[in-house]
Amino acid sequence: MNKQKPVILITNDDGITSPGILALVEAVKDLGQVIVVAPDSPQSGMGHAITIGDPLRLNKVHVFEGEGVESWQCSGTPADCVKLARDKILHKRPDICLSGINHGANHSINIIYSGTMSAAMEAAIEGVPSIGLSLLDYKFDADFTVAGMVARDLTQRMLAQKMPPHILLNVNIPIVTKETFKGMKICRQANARWAEEFEHRVDPRGKDYYWMTGKFIFMDKEPGTDVDALNEGFASIVPIKIDFTDLKMKEWLESEWDL
Amino acid sequence: MNKQKPVILITNDDGITSPGILALVEAVKDLGQVIVVAPDSPQSGMGHAITIGDPLRLNKVHVFEGEGVESWQCSGTPADCVKLARDKILHKRPDICLSGINHGANHSINIIYSGTMSAAMEAAIEGVPSIGLSLLDYKFDADFTVAGMVARDLTQRMLAQKMPPHILLNVNIPIVTKETFKGMKICRQANARWAEEFEHRVDPRGKDYYWMTGKFIFMDKEPGTDVDALNEGFASIVPIKIDFTDLKMKEWLESEWDL
Repeated sequence: MNKQKPVILITNDDGITSPGILALVEAVKDLGQVIVVAPDSPQSGMGHAITIGDPLRLNKVHVFEGEGVESWQCSGTPADCVKLARDKILHKRPDICLSGINHGANHSINIIYSGTMSAAMEAAIEGVPSIGLSLLDYKFDADFTVAGMVARDLTQRMLAQKMPPHILLNVNIPIVTKETFKGMKICRQANARWAEEFEHRVDPRGKDYYWMTGKFIFMDKEPGTDVDALNEGFASIVPIKIDFTDLKMKEWLESEWDL
Repeated sequence: MNKQKPVILITNDDGITSPGILALVEAVKDLGQVIVVAPDSPQSGMGHAITIGDPLRLNKVHVFEGEGVESWQCSGTPADCVKLARDKILHKRPDICLSGINHGANHSINIIYSGTMSAAMEAAIEGVPSIGLSLLDYKFDADFTVAGMVARDLTQRMLAQKMPPHILLNVNIPIVTKETFKGMKICRQANARWAEEFEHRVDPRGKDYYWMTGKFIFMDKEPGTDVDALNEGFASIVPIKIDFTDLKMKEWLESEWDL
């Protein structure tokens, strides 16, 4: 591996053959030594799952040979890919980890369900500056032009500058063209949730089953959220913490509870 | 359902037949109307996974009949169980959600890999006060006596008092007896990580595979963490936030980056 070039680890949760990861490779491949380690099948909704009860497979593949990029597919989750990449392929920390580009939004509360963000979070835990990137278009043949520009811009910034440890960005890109794109905005995570309405069906053998469906409920009353920025045509950037302690609630409990 | 009694939703990630969930049911069954909705098989390490690409099964079972408690098993993840319980069984928010008692620690960084905590987090997102409970003993036949006492004490407190919205507690219990137990302590999440060392093996057909193994690395230098409390023989209580925005990093980016 070339010692001068920064090592860029790329992964995703839609699987190694998805157009989104190809768009990401193309956007940054000249910025460093790119290595792709990604799931061999789609992993959407996997949250921060890791594989502890099953063996993991890891195989070198030729998916990105045309791009001059080394790639590996893994039978595990996005978080597994990051862990395996470091231990079995890179044998050291990459300089940056990029996850995506996801087909579909990961703003607001979606971060906790997102395999894309869990891979980026896993890298951040290991002290690697990382970015999860998601395009608000769920379509397989979505246009990743603006998302690729954003990925490239942020990667250049993060490789050029000394970053604080554990920097982790949740980046979402609206459905815009180069012409209608308003730029990037630093935001906070919007307060929102999904209201599930499971659709009941009966299988051919007469047994019940359910499909998860849901309605997005935006509950935030203050400005400055990622959802606001996206609605205005900006790409949203939310820096994410790994310490989940609720310090305000901690204070409340300490004053209210006599333990 | 009895209108006077608070509704207590119980779930876990070790599966509906694990001793830990039975210990939890036994500890709180007289405090309200208990309903169990839990995975039909072990889901450890599932993080906040949800099932969107597959249909879900949900069946009433007689597992807790002897306890006088209604129970359902679900083919999905812990987070799926909480979502389905509300939409298809309770048709309203429970008064409290308890997840566990997990066989094994979920302190510090483990929270992000934990199916136990993801179920509790899912409930908290929906505005239900919730507790994830984990015993530091991985053994199937672990002694849940003290963990049950802690579960009962906290459930009583949370049902008796008006709680702030989105209250979510990550509770871990050390391996102690009633006699050596020091009590409960409100803490913050320790800074720690896992260093993975995947064990390489070759299957009978000559193909490589890997088992995830790892070493826990404690990196915190200040007192007041959950790991400290557990080492001293206390049960640790960490209140958890659902907004993951890193406000300090947000300020840093706003001052450093000209977007």
